[in-house]
Amino acid sequence: MKHENAHRRLKTAEGHLRGIQRMLEEDAYCIDVIRQIQAVQAALNKISVQILEEHMNSCLITAIRGEEPEERERVLKEIIEVFETATRT
Amino acid sequence: MKHENAHRRLKTAEGHLRGIQRMLEEDAYCIDVIRQIQAVQAALNKISVQILEEHMNSCLITAIRGEEPEERERVLKEIIEVFETATRT
Amino acid sequence: MKHENAHRRLKTAEGHLRGIQRMLEEDAYCIDVIRQIQAVQAALNKISVQILEEHMNSCLITAIRGEEPEERERVLKEIIEVFETATRT
Amino acid sequence: MKHENAHRRLKTAEGHLRGIQRMLEEDAYCIDVIRQIQAVQAALNKISVQILEEHMNSCLITAIRGEEPEERERVLKEIIEVFETATRT
Repeated sequence: MKHENAHRRLKTAEGHLRGIQRMLEEDAYCIDVIRQIQAVQAALNKISVQILEEHMNSCLITAIRGEEPEERERVLKEIIEVFETATRT
Repeated sequence: MKHENAHRRLKTAEGHLRGIQRMLEEDAYCIDVIRQIQAVQAALNKISVQILEEHMNSCLITAIRGEEPEERERVLKEIIEVFETATRT
Repeated sequence: MKHENAHRRLKTAEGHLRGIQRMLEEDAYCIDVIRQIQAVQAALNKISVQILEEHMNSCLITAIRGEEPEERERVLKEIIEVFETATRT
Repeated sequence: MKHENAHRRLKTAEGHLRGIQRMLEEDAYCIDVIRQIQAVQAALNKISVQILEEHMNSCLITAIRGEEPEERERVLKEIIEVFETATRT
C-alpha cells in the first residue's frame, strides 16, 4: 500500500471524530466541540498535502515526461482543481 | 442530547473517513482520495456552522443578557477565536 | 470614523496589491507572486476578524438586549453567514 | 508581460479595496464591509489559481523535463508549499 502514513493518520482522524460524537452525547460545551472539529480539519489538510506531494513526485512526473499531451494536461488540470477547491474562501 | 443532527452528520463523516482508508488500501487514484478528503472537510465545515449557530442562539444570548461582564466577554472572545481559526488562510 | 485601525490596514493591503502588480510587470517569479497574494489574504483575514469583533461588541450586544426579536435574529444570522463564507473549503 | 489577465484582475481588486476604505469612512454597516472583504479574497483566490496554472504549464514542465534533479525538486516543493498555505485552516 502506498500512502501508509496517510492511512494511519486517517485512522487517527476517524477516532478523533468518534471522540467528538461522544462529546456531543455528553453535552460538551459547543465551542470545545467546534475546536475539536477544527483540529480534525487541520489534520485532514496535512493528509491532503502529503498525498498531493506523493502524487506530484510520481504520477505527475510520469505524465509530464510521457508522450501523451492529453494525459499530461489532464493530470495538471486535476491538481489545479484540487488547489481551487482548497482555496475557495 | 443537543445537536442531534450534528451528531448524525459526524457519524456519516466518520464512515466517509473509513471509506477513504479503504480507497488507500485498494491503491485508489491519489486525486480521487484528495477529493474525498475535501468532501469530508466541506461536511465538517457545515457541522461547525450548525453548532456555532445553536451556540449563538442559546449560550451567547444568555451571556449577553446576563449580569456578568466577564462571562459575556469570554463568550464573545471564544466565537471570535473560532472565526479566526476558520479564516486563517 | 469607527474601525480606524482596519482602515489603515486596508490602505496597506491596497499598496501591497499595487506592489504585486509591479511584480507582474517586471516578470517576477510566479511562486513569489502567489506568496505575496497569500500574504495579502492573511492580512485581509485579520482585518475581517477585527471588524467582526468590533461588530459583536457593539451592534450584536445592542440587538440581543433590544426588544425586537426579528432584529436580533437578523444580526445573529448575518454573523453565521459571514462565518459560513469564511469556512467554505 | 505574462499574466496580463491576472494583472488586470489585481488592479480591479485594488480598486475594490479602495472602495472598502470609503465604506469605512462613511461608517457603512460592519457586515457589509466584511462581505466586501470576502469578495476581494475570492477574487484573489481566483488570481492565485490562474497564476499557478500558468506556472505549472510552463516552469514546472520545463523543470520536470530538465536534467537537474535539484531544480525539479525545488519547483515541486514550492508548489506543495503554496498548496499548504492555501489549505491551512
